[in-house]
Amino acid sequence: FETGKPGEVLENLDAYHPADAADLLEQLPRSVLSETAELLGEQFPTEILLELRDEYREIVVDNLPDAAISEAVNSLDSDDAALILEDLAEDRQSAILENMEIRDREELERVLAFDEESAGRLMQRDFLAAPEFWTVGQAVDHARANAEDLPDVFFEIYIIDPAFRVVGAVPLHKIMRTPRSVPLGQIAEEIEVEIGPDMDQEEVAYLFQKYDLTSAPVVDESGRLTGMVTIDDVVDVIQEENREDLLALSGVSSAGGFDTVVSSFRSRAPWLLINVFTAFIASGVISMFSATIDSYVALAVLMPVVVALGGNAGSQTLAVSVRGIAERELSGSAARRAIVRELLTAIINGIVFSAAVAVIAFFWFADVRLSLVIAIAMIGTFLWAGLSGILIPLGLQRLGADPAVSSSVFLLTTVDIVGFLSFLGLATLLLL
Amino acid sequence: FETGKPGEVLENLDAYHPADAADLLEQLPRSVLSETAELLGEQFPTEILLELRDEYREIVVDNLPDAAISEAVNSLDSDDAALILEDLAEDRQSAILENMEIRDREELERVLAFDEESAGRLMQRDFLAAPEFWTVGQAVDHARANAEDLPDVFFEIYIIDPAFRVVGAVPLHKIMRTPRSVPLGQIAEEIEVEIGPDMDQEEVAYLFQKYDLTSAPVVDESGRLTGMVTIDDVVDVIQEENREDLLALSGVSSAGGFDTVVSSFRSRAPWLLINVFTAFIASGVISMFSATIDSYVALAVLMPVVVALGGNAGSQTLAVSVRGIAERELSGSAARRAIVRELLTAIINGIVFSAAVAVIAFFWFADVRLSLVIAIAMIGTFLWAGLSGILIPLGLQRLGADPAVSSSVFLLTTVDIVGFLSFLGLATLLLL
Repeated sequence: FETGKPGEVLENLDAYHPADAADLLEQLPRSVLSETAELLGEQFPTEILLELRDEYREIVVDNLPDAAISEAVNSLDSDDAALILEDLAEDRQSAILENMEIRDREELERVLAFDEESAGRLMQRDFLAAPEFWTVGQAVDHARANAEDLPDVFFEIYIIDPAFRVVGAVPLHKIMRTPRSVPLGQIAEEIEVEIGPDMDQEEVAYLFQKYDLTSAPVVDESGRLTGMVTIDDVVDVIQEENREDLLALSGVSSAGGFDTVVSSFRSRAPWLLINVFTAFIASGVISMFSATIDSYVALAVLMPVVVALGGNAGSQTLAVSVRGIAERELSGSAARRAIVRELLTAIINGIVFSAAVAVIAFFWFADVRLSLVIAIAMIGTFLWAGLSGILIPLGLQRLGADPAVSSSVFLLTTVDIVGFLSFLGLATLLLL
Repeated sequence: FETGKPGEVLENLDAYHPADAADLLEQLPRSVLSETAELLGEQFPTEILLELRDEYREIVVDNLPDAAISEAVNSLDSDDAALILEDLAEDRQSAILENMEIRDREELERVLAFDEESAGRLMQRDFLAAPEFWTVGQAVDHARANAEDLPDVFFEIYIIDPAFRVVGAVPLHKIMRTPRSVPLGQIAEEIEVEIGPDMDQEEVAYLFQKYDLTSAPVVDESGRLTGMVTIDDVVDVIQEENREDLLALSGVSSAGGFDTVVSSFRSRAPWLLINVFTAFIASGVISMFSATIDSYVALAVLMPVVVALGGNAGSQTLAVSVRGIAERELSGSAARRAIVRELLTAIINGIVFSAAVAVIAFFWFADVRLSLVIAIAMIGTFLWAGLSGILIPLGLQRLGADPAVSSSVFLLTTVDIVGFLSFLGLATLLLL
């Protein structure tokens, strides 16, 4: 990559599948990647551009000339074209849009007007549609005659009525197995889900999983077919949503392979900052019992055990709950059942592990009352942790918030407070 | 569901899409679900059986008569049939297999012989294949003539040589747009990935994502085509692997919407049990400094701040690293870059947040030396947390272990030890 000859670099890249070439480029240091983009300019292969992860594609696009981007955008399906344009600064974006043919431009502007995480952004505007009275043979002949206008990849033909409303879909494998004379209406499958362009991409992904879809039509408010979403884009959404959940549970707002130190700091500092204050609230609770600790230093030795175990039990419940909500397993009676289950699990865990801790503490400090204090405090903390672990995410969900974001903060802070308060409070009552 | 009349129940269920009917059944209490399965018996709709989540399907299958299961298994593609059979106790499984036609039975036994998380289990044995000299027209005519033998759903025709080795694939949308006279070999696409029946399902899912596949052929050691994997099954795998990662990071071995209290306890107790011991190790560290705490009770008040912040910073790094490994972003030079980034992020976080904590501690206790002690201890703890957060998962991965499992235990235990040791140790040196 460092020879500086575009021809050689291109030859190297062409030897790979675009996805592998993109992997190779992602291994390069940031500066070499920018240089490569500049070097190749209009020759930068569009397929590789699409395969790059967001943060790398942004770097490349920033270093490509306008002409290269125009060319790429013109040759792509509308969803992919939007993907590239959305990375651009607004003035560059409008400059490139202005140089496009009026029809393509209007189409792209419509796509870009949709919310970034909506079905409208995910969909492409090319699709194959036919009236239900067409026969299989007519549909195939039409596709062959208009091969150039077809989307690059598609899995079904949509059946539309005269008002362009979707009334069904014929998967291509049904076209394959049906005689030419059969009308499409006769083999069409019902459309199971209605996807509007404003639907959140997470909802779209859920519907694809639930109904095992490979593609689905997108219809506007008046029921007219306006585009289609295909499974390859949905798989990316599934991964994205999963990443968000996992990171949010650990208090990270975003992360990618090319994060700089600055972006890492930015995505993690907010939760640590909140944690500074919550940690001092816990310290405040402890300081209320300074006198007790002063006369009974074993309390300082044992108190981290109470909150560590309670915090972990709570985090376990939280992970199970957040995942259950993400997989739509916790609605209606299932939610009630889960709350009861978590309550009972917390009671059992509390009894088992507080007994274990009490026994170990007794062998260490030979003080029955101390063992009793820690056992009672732990059962209380486990109960609190278990209930918070399910009620906080369910509550956040009911409020329309993301159940993964900030639920750890609430949980761990309150568990610390409950743990220290019950352990040191009981000790003050029973040991002094 | 409680009328006890199979006809009415069936009518109710038939009114819904199988996926929705399955959702409905999953809302029922365990006992009612068993009764419904018993009641419907052979009439239990196979499509709904497939849509149920694993733990619910197990309950239904346990309560269906052998005849009902035989019928379902006979009518299904081999991957779905295996899904139902694998839920059965071994003696019931072999009883049902014995009653099948010898060819179907051998096929199913071959599928069941593969490892549960392998491509062999994921694949179905029905597919459409043709030699490369066939024309588009011949392929379509063949499919129409043999419509009944085709798989229920498929997206491409595999091109095979005389030895049954796959040499390419023709997506159905290419069949649609190509004139009948064109030979398949001319429009075939290269097979980008070689999937063997023993490949781990996680690897299969990764390849599908990377190359945007909708289906892929599975070939045995000699290169012969033996089955195909389709995207709907892969999407389930992606969800499963994501769930495992998220739960493992919080110390839960498995979870599902129908978990009983017993299974919840079993999946969480191991990590809590380990945590009892690690918590006491941390207590042991604190008890080494009992004398120091005795004469300086503010240390007991502040020490949880050090380990809470350090633990959270470490969990953040861990989440980012585990996710990066899962998305294959951390190999080769990218891993080195990530280690450097985490080190620098830890230094910056350490400086920023130890300063914040030191200032708050100063306003509280008005003791410069105490603030200095907590600041130094925190920087050290952040460094340790950041490095463990990336090195532990990378190390586990290199050892061939799952980077998400047990890395939290290691991290949080060592952070506690480092935090208490540095804070209380420095205090003993500088404050007494």
